[in-house]
Amino acid sequence: MGAISIVFEPEGRQVTVSPGTTILQATSEAGVRIRSECGGRGVCGKCRVIIEDQRGLNELTENETALLTHEELRSGYRLACRSTISRYSGKLTVVIPKESMIGERKFQATGVERPVQLAPSIVKYFISLPRPTLNDVRPDLERVLELLKNKYGLEFLDVDYEVLKALPYILREANWDVTVVIWKEREIISIEAGNTTEDALGLAIDLGTSKIVTHLVDLLTGETVAIASVENPQTVYGEDIISRIAFTRNSNEKLMLLQRSAVKGINETIDEVCTETGRSPEDIYEAVVAGNTAMHHLFLGIRPEYLALSPFTPAISRSVSVKADELNIDMNPRGIVNVLPVIAGFVGADAVADLLASGIHDMEGTSLLVDIGTNTEVFVSSDKETLCCSCASGPAFEGAHITQGMKAVTGAIEKVSIEEGSYEVDYDTIGDEKPIGLCGSGIVDVVAEMLRCGIMAPSGRFNLDIKTPRLRKIDDDMKFIVAWADETGIGRDIAISERDINEIQLAKAAVFTGCSILMKRKNMDKDDLDRVLIAGAFGTHIDTESAKLMGLIPDVQSEKIKFIGNAAVAGAKMALISKGVREEARLVSERVRYLELTVDPDFSKEFTNSLYLPHRHMERFPNVKRALERETDK
Amino acid sequence: MGAISIVFEPEGRQVTVSPGTTILQATSEAGVRIRSECGGRGVCGKCRVIIEDQRGLNELTENETALLTHEELRSGYRLACRSTISRYSGKLTVVIPKESMIGERKFQATGVERPVQLAPSIVKYFISLPRPTLNDVRPDLERVLELLKNKYGLEFLDVDYEVLKALPYILREANWDVTVVIWKEREIISIEAGNTTEDALGLAIDLGTSKIVTHLVDLLTGETVAIASVENPQTVYGEDIISRIAFTRNSNEKLMLLQRSAVKGINETIDEVCTETGRSPEDIYEAVVAGNTAMHHLFLGIRPEYLALSPFTPAISRSVSVKADELNIDMNPRGIVNVLPVIAGFVGADAVADLLASGIHDMEGTSLLVDIGTNTEVFVSSDKETLCCSCASGPAFEGAHITQGMKAVTGAIEKVSIEEGSYEVDYDTIGDEKPIGLCGSGIVDVVAEMLRCGIMAPSGRFNLDIKTPRLRKIDDDMKFIVAWADETGIGRDIAISERDINEIQLAKAAVFTGCSILMKRKNMDKDDLDRVLIAGAFGTHIDTESAKLMGLIPDVQSEKIKFIGNAAVAGAKMALISKGVREEARLVSERVRYLELTVDPDFSKEFTNSLYLPHRHMERFPNVKRALERETDK
Repeated sequence: MGAISIVFEPEGRQVTVSPGTTILQATSEAGVRIRSECGGRGVCGKCRVIIEDQRGLNELTENETALLTHEELRSGYRLACRSTISRYSGKLTVVIPKESMIGERKFQATGVERPVQLAPSIVKYFISLPRPTLNDVRPDLERVLELLKNKYGLEFLDVDYEVLKALPYILREANWDVTVVIWKEREIISIEAGNTTEDALGLAIDLGTSKIVTHLVDLLTGETVAIASVENPQTVYGEDIISRIAFTRNSNEKLMLLQRSAVKGINETIDEVCTETGRSPEDIYEAVVAGNTAMHHLFLGIRPEYLALSPFTPAISRSVSVKADELNIDMNPRGIVNVLPVIAGFVGADAVADLLASGIHDMEGTSLLVDIGTNTEVFVSSDKETLCCSCASGPAFEGAHITQGMKAVTGAIEKVSIEEGSYEVDYDTIGDEKPIGLCGSGIVDVVAEMLRCGIMAPSGRFNLDIKTPRLRKIDDDMKFIVAWADETGIGRDIAISERDINEIQLAKAAVFTGCSILMKRKNMDKDDLDRVLIAGAFGTHIDTESAKLMGLIPDVQSEKIKFIGNAAVAGAKMALISKGVREEARLVSERVRYLELTVDPDFSKEFTNSLYLPHRHMERFPNVKRALERETDK
Repeated sequence: MGAISIVFEPEGRQVTVSPGTTILQATSEAGVRIRSECGGRGVCGKCRVIIEDQRGLNELTENETALLTHEELRSGYRLACRSTISRYSGKLTVVIPKESMIGERKFQATGVERPVQLAPSIVKYFISLPRPTLNDVRPDLERVLELLKNKYGLEFLDVDYEVLKALPYILREANWDVTVVIWKEREIISIEAGNTTEDALGLAIDLGTSKIVTHLVDLLTGETVAIASVENPQTVYGEDIISRIAFTRNSNEKLMLLQRSAVKGINETIDEVCTETGRSPEDIYEAVVAGNTAMHHLFLGIRPEYLALSPFTPAISRSVSVKADELNIDMNPRGIVNVLPVIAGFVGADAVADLLASGIHDMEGTSLLVDIGTNTEVFVSSDKETLCCSCASGPAFEGAHITQGMKAVTGAIEKVSIEEGSYEVDYDTIGDEKPIGLCGSGIVDVVAEMLRCGIMAPSGRFNLDIKTPRLRKIDDDMKFIVAWADETGIGRDIAISERDINEIQLAKAAVFTGCSILMKRKNMDKDDLDRVLIAGAFGTHIDTESAKLMGLIPDVQSEKIKFIGNAAVAGAKMALISKGVREEARLVSERVRYLELTVDPDFSKEFTNSLYLPHRHMERFPNVKRALERETDK
């Protein structure tokens, strides 16, 4: 009976909902962005809210008592996804604590591009047609096609049906002077009045699980003219891919909800780049999209559930081209949306873009490329033969599954050093705000620094011989305090526990096992590597010394390590402006050999060995070994 | 203020409308079919209705006083398109006289087909796929494509986007045993669970200006399994093409109204053939449509207005293939609707079908083919070179523009003979009902018979020396009474006037000029003709002797004349079941040489000469000349 009014603080947004609505659903209706990594299943514990007067709500659920501390429960903490409005209760005030907010993200919106020859799939031709007479009654289309054939040697062109429908009118309206837009020398996708050859735009889109980055590219110059990015709006249905796939299970309707959601995010970026540059979406004729295989399926509306079930087969690996209006992308409606090919269920178009952007598949010498994310793709390339695998590194590097982990948004601790002997901590936060949690690069630093200072043993256990107030038992769990409560923005200590270290060990072991097994299959060891490339938003911000120290990547000389940034958007852009690169994408996706790690005979053993920091066989990390010995000697 | 209730008699259908509605609009709302050849512009005079109590209507309009006789006006006749309900007037009774009704049509639903090798564009393959394992993680689509390549040599296949979306689900649902439906060895248009190879249907559709004829064809045998036909529902927007094109001018909305209207008619026939045979529309994978160029444009939603403006250029001549669901045709939604190519603005896909069905473009000897309709297409073929033209014969042969003309529906006089000397008339009607008007074949007979008996001179003027009560002046116009009032179903005489004869002269001159000029361009005369083929619904029912007598076709021996019936549907069917014929259609449409009659230097002279019955140069009709001389001698 009756609607309930909710105010979300500190933003002060209001919304009116009916009984039965969860607070998480209400946030979505109110347009309040709140973390929800499990997609509302009550298991990630990230959608914390504070509700003082809980009289209108359901009783505390088991998930809440398990995931929230006694003190938090006393302070009115609830999980938004488990709190249901049960009856009319006047006005409800819900406070979103900082740690539950999705903040401004530190994000890599560009990547290193290889220079390519400008040859986009879209070409515009301005033509002046002879007018029909009783002695030349050729049909409109044949008139156009014959001229294109005679003047430009273009043959066997298809014509978009919508273009055909409007053709007689446009030709006469334009007094027979028109611009023909041709895709891949294959299809006429637009015929426009007058000379519009100067307006030819394209989009390169990195459709990430968390973030969408769009470059508006001038196809005449190949230059990016504007960049926009948004959080992927699918996030409200689950922060990670597996949650989103689970959300869509057995429901085409929910699948289409996610599909439209990705489109909405892309359209927001298009609106932004067009507004910024004053260009018209009608002049955008092609978009090239790179995303992991799950995003690829969700974006195209292909049922993704089998990606999450062994043996994890995708529906398709080749590139897919769809008319923009079939997907409701805000660009020329008969323009083309091209989704780059994928390699395997967990090696997507973003990985293909890694190769395009880095070019390692075609380079002299031996290369290792690691694109770190929730799934980490690893490539080893030599003699123009590339092996790849996917590592289930999990979201720990994105801050998930870590008690006080968070994404790389404002307030996250991103850089940490620990002073030897005193064990005092120095840290930097994103935006120089008071710290509210640890993001991936901060976590890597903490773990590496604790190892270096001997606070933690290679097994991942704390060294209880170390005497420092920062190492203490809290809630039956040993923790190392990174920031004291009074320094933080949340009024509580920010610490890392053995359980957190364990999560990091699992994640880093997954990545290193991938590197290790691929190198083994190519009969090489770390000294054969001419270069190690690190891609991905997270990768760009980690400290390479910390990464080597903890054994995330092989122990190579620092000068061999290179960050290539957002390779997904860089690769998509290269494919957008160069037909050659597009063809290369096809070849790469077909030729790269995918290795299913979990069926490799060496997998279990290597994984177990890699759980050690940096590794059970320390001799494989000689520089780290030496450094640690030096510390011990001191 | 208030709604007015109208009852249409004799059917008794009721409808409620608001003031401002015309009676013609009300018929459409009531679902009463009434003639309206000009599309409601008040000029054809065919939508006659009888309204006794006219108090609720507007005053008589000028068009009505011009087109209706005094007696008719006294009897309460109005034109439905000019009668507007002006105010509340209780219940209005509107009687539809027989001559205004659209009756059951005598119609040719089949044509003569040449035997062709069965090779439809649609082929189904039943395949059992290897299940994916961790050692075989090929994507679903690649799994399908590789099997098709290895087992059937099929390569470079495209996949319909909708098929792709459902693919992962279908494969697993079907336990990896599926039937793949492939169009033109080029695109996968459906993947179905289990073995459905026995169910493969297609449609051959004659999309006529007046009538739609559909054959449901089993693609495994090439046989027609059911036939259905309906009046083209576009008729309410204008009986002829020019009226319909005028209706759409400057309005995409009205164009789409006509488009949907054609689709509605086609869907009715599909429903009928599927219901009759118990087959599912889902099993229909391809439809081949033949129609004149205007119907082609209207059906595809292409703006047709320039077809009606000099130089009458179509938007496209090549064949167009569109997915069924883009056109809302009730068949497999991703099936293909293929519209056969056209030759010129007034030489459509129906004409291409004439050639496919007759094969004259590929025959030994010399052939003349005449497809008589509102536009008559004429072809002359010899040495595998085909010339064609379009003749603006107008709708006289369909009964329009003739005072008491009508379509070939029940009650139409279709056969006439006049006794020499007594000038008594013998006639047959369609359905053996009391006559209500003259259809095309009847009109041709009357004119030929009047010429033979000397009632009418070769100039088309009545011979006033003939004494018979049937030849008399009515309303200042000389008329020959074909049926006396008391014999007819309309209570009035059925007669033919000099003005009517004039219309026929114009129509037959148009057709014969076409034949004559094409033969001249090929340097041949009638004696060179090995065969004369007559196609079209009207053509099938005319008397060849009458046709020669009046000079509609060349004066050749009767055994050289052959009717080929509904060549449009026959040609469409051949193209449906044979890829070879489809390719032939393309070649024919490209190679047939179109001659624009109106710019031919001989056109005017030949047209003027052809106005004579049979011709000003009687020596070109030697047999007719001899017959007429015999009559005169008697």
